[in-house]
Amino acid sequence: MDGKNMTLLCDFYELTMANGYFELGKGSEICYFDVFFRRVPDGGGFAIAAGLEQVVEYIKSLAFTDEDIEFLRGKGIFSEGFLEYLRTFRFTGDIFAVPEGTPVFPGEPIMTVRAPAIEAQFIETYVLLCLNHQSLIATKANRVVRAAEGRAVAEFGSRRAQGADGAMLGARAAYIGGCAATACTVCDRDFGIPATGTMAHSWVQMFDSEYEAFVSYCRTYPNNATLLVDTYDVLRSGVPNAIRAFQELGITKCGIRLDSGDITYLSKKARAMLDEAGLTECKIVVSNSLDENIIRDIIRQGAKVDSFGVGERLITAKSNPVFGGVYKLVAKESDTGEIIPKIKISENPEKITNPHFKRVLRIFSGGRAVADLMTVYDEPVPGGEPIELFDPIETWKTKTVTDYTVRELLVPIFKGGVQVYECPSISEIQAYCKAEIDTLWDEVKRFENPHRYYVDLSKKLWDIKQALLHKKGK
Amino acid sequence: MDGKNMTLLCDFYELTMANGYFELGKGSEICYFDVFFRRVPDGGGFAIAAGLEQVVEYIKSLAFTDEDIEFLRGKGIFSEGFLEYLRTFRFTGDIFAVPEGTPVFPGEPIMTVRAPAIEAQFIETYVLLCLNHQSLIATKANRVVRAAEGRAVAEFGSRRAQGADGAMLGARAAYIGGCAATACTVCDRDFGIPATGTMAHSWVQMFDSEYEAFVSYCRTYPNNATLLVDTYDVLRSGVPNAIRAFQELGITKCGIRLDSGDITYLSKKARAMLDEAGLTECKIVVSNSLDENIIRDIIRQGAKVDSFGVGERLITAKSNPVFGGVYKLVAKESDTGEIIPKIKISENPEKITNPHFKRVLRIFSGGRAVADLMTVYDEPVPGGEPIELFDPIETWKTKTVTDYTVRELLVPIFKGGVQVYECPSISEIQAYCKAEIDTLWDEVKRFENPHRYYVDLSKKLWDIKQALLHKKGK
Repeated sequence: MDGKNMTLLCDFYELTMANGYFELGKGSEICYFDVFFRRVPDGGGFAIAAGLEQVVEYIKSLAFTDEDIEFLRGKGIFSEGFLEYLRTFRFTGDIFAVPEGTPVFPGEPIMTVRAPAIEAQFIETYVLLCLNHQSLIATKANRVVRAAEGRAVAEFGSRRAQGADGAMLGARAAYIGGCAATACTVCDRDFGIPATGTMAHSWVQMFDSEYEAFVSYCRTYPNNATLLVDTYDVLRSGVPNAIRAFQELGITKCGIRLDSGDITYLSKKARAMLDEAGLTECKIVVSNSLDENIIRDIIRQGAKVDSFGVGERLITAKSNPVFGGVYKLVAKESDTGEIIPKIKISENPEKITNPHFKRVLRIFSGGRAVADLMTVYDEPVPGGEPIELFDPIETWKTKTVTDYTVRELLVPIFKGGVQVYECPSISEIQAYCKAEIDTLWDEVKRFENPHRYYVDLSKKLWDIKQALLHKKGK
Repeated sequence: MDGKNMTLLCDFYELTMANGYFELGKGSEICYFDVFFRRVPDGGGFAIAAGLEQVVEYIKSLAFTDEDIEFLRGKGIFSEGFLEYLRTFRFTGDIFAVPEGTPVFPGEPIMTVRAPAIEAQFIETYVLLCLNHQSLIATKANRVVRAAEGRAVAEFGSRRAQGADGAMLGARAAYIGGCAATACTVCDRDFGIPATGTMAHSWVQMFDSEYEAFVSYCRTYPNNATLLVDTYDVLRSGVPNAIRAFQELGITKCGIRLDSGDITYLSKKARAMLDEAGLTECKIVVSNSLDENIIRDIIRQGAKVDSFGVGERLITAKSNPVFGGVYKLVAKESDTGEIIPKIKISENPEKITNPHFKRVLRIFSGGRAVADLMTVYDEPVPGGEPIELFDPIETWKTKTVTDYTVRELLVPIFKGGVQVYECPSISEIQAYCKAEIDTLWDEVKRFENPHRYYVDLSKKLWDIKQALLHKKGK
């Protein structure tokens, strides 16, 4: 993004509503919006929040240019007063968000925006775009990385990404989720994510023989010679030629890459051939439409793999390419500054919102995250007294927690339009993400049919929600 | 993209190979690469090529900055000679491509690059990214548009797109595929795609009552009042309040939008209520996780819908979010300028490439496209004599075509590094796309199990391919 002004990357209705609020004198009413999601992709037990740094950049660069305003005037539906107002439009509100890399759960806010109506509404599209995209890829990457059981995973998907940002910020999110590297060079320059790669099939085709191609590569890169061995025939040509090249040049820091065929079978055979030739240190890298399920399968079948290159199925989150974060009004302030909770009703109970300006507390006990608790903003944070949690649907299911610590998940990012949060480095985020996931129970981390982590409402918040539901939100 | 320099958005192996070719004195060997794909997404019968204009912008802005070179020097693996070479690196080759909006088929080149080895190889990642992304979305959008049977389809997906380019260029591709509009404002400013939108649920929640929200909106936009009627209860609250607002203000250019619940049932009921109130001109717009299958279903069930807003399932091509275009070496020139065909063998026959520098001819007969024929570059284009086509696998299946016209699909885009192609306007591309699809048989246009369109090889090309296969590519 490079500080590019993305102001007009908004749904057009943000502008029709903004103009309406302006004309009706409602533009400065203070509103509260929550970003939350309803389902974890791929049926997983948790998602990983990501994309906040790009939201911060967006908010800071938010401004309409003269050209933007001229363009909007041409639409013929916006008042001159509103267009004039846009000239000095800036974000002046507050933003609270969970830090990038935090495991998050359905129904809880991962961001809360408090701002005058026009501003709070206007940022919806781009905020969702940032958080949805990167949370999607970070969540997927983490599944892939966990499937690899300690073997390095490199993100290889740029060519199949949905646009340049899909490639670059996707690689960023994949790193947050635990990938060790990317093939995308610019992500090394701009984000400090190690870029990696050696050769394509075309390299092999460019020489008169595969052997000559391999020797030429090894001479050029004697310290990092990973040879792609499946251009013609892996076991009859590729691996023997690689061994011959490594041996003749005395290369030991080397590897081979398998990019087609039966990875399990080929990797075992190749490992045996390499070991027999004394190349026990030679690494085997595999790629070819991998994802967490295929990786688990080939490891279970005893494949001899040192690292994985994962492309299209990671960079697009192919099995579930949408992260359904939404942006919903949860409260507004009256003229006297009273916070009035708001709810969105739906025939689908899943789509009913949790009203009010809220805190989200993560409760840790015995080194584990045991529940998240949403409370009204002005409730005291529990300080050691027993907490009784209850299921917000089946309220007779209760659980009392003692001997715990509490952390507020939503931290201040902007205060009165001023950034008050320093975005951590990408490696800090990756380390934080890993440490936070380590606080989750294995049952929550299962890939399929995970245990549902508790996300509960305080009694006070639950009562307010029920009252609004019975009044049908009005 | 705005002419943004995307040079370093390349797989790192493009650079390791480039440095290798440079060091080995192979950098200026002339190579031919084809872009082609192997399978139509969603099991469809054809794809739509898109993304060429962004390739053109990329090629023109291709250049390494001093900072890029400094960054690469820091990797410690590139020679000083190569880094010096990069200072003046430009694309000096030829590019041929099918125009955007052309229906294309598996196995045939949609782009051919002829250039010195380093240049031809280097552009792989970004060229594929552009063509894969936009061809994916154009193809998906066209399915959705055809399902809507003449009703307008607006692209609504920015908030769920995979990054900003995913949103913007996705909307561009959706327009090429036949969408009438987008919700993404910046696409109107930058591409001239009409942006559309009226209100979110939060608009309704911002007022003391739904009725007040509707009246306020109608007063602000008396000429385009489309009211979102599902914030509380569609049939008991939303539609009655909308009717009351329209009638009291005497508004006739109006609409309602349904965004949840059973669209078929609700649209029929709402239509009856609107008609009974005399609002027969009031349009019904529907949205809510639509795609081509849901749209076909609700139309078949008699839903009363005037237009569709399609979001996440279009902007990510959710059911099949990867377009698998690849970039393969198909020939190189000898010192004497002879073109030597190259092949990539695979145990998977689908992955075997079609070698050589080729033409692609589309053969029309009786106003219909009947087959595409790949020939060697120097074969004469058929000029009226009977053409015998044969299946490249089951060669006994033959067909003779007489009374035909021929069009070359690959047109020159760059010649010696200079752009020789003027990119058409987006509306020209949309119209061309529609006209070209009209030349396809309905059997090819079926959504499932379509008839396989003929993509054949000339006898000369087939013989060359067989000879290479028998020599195992060497």
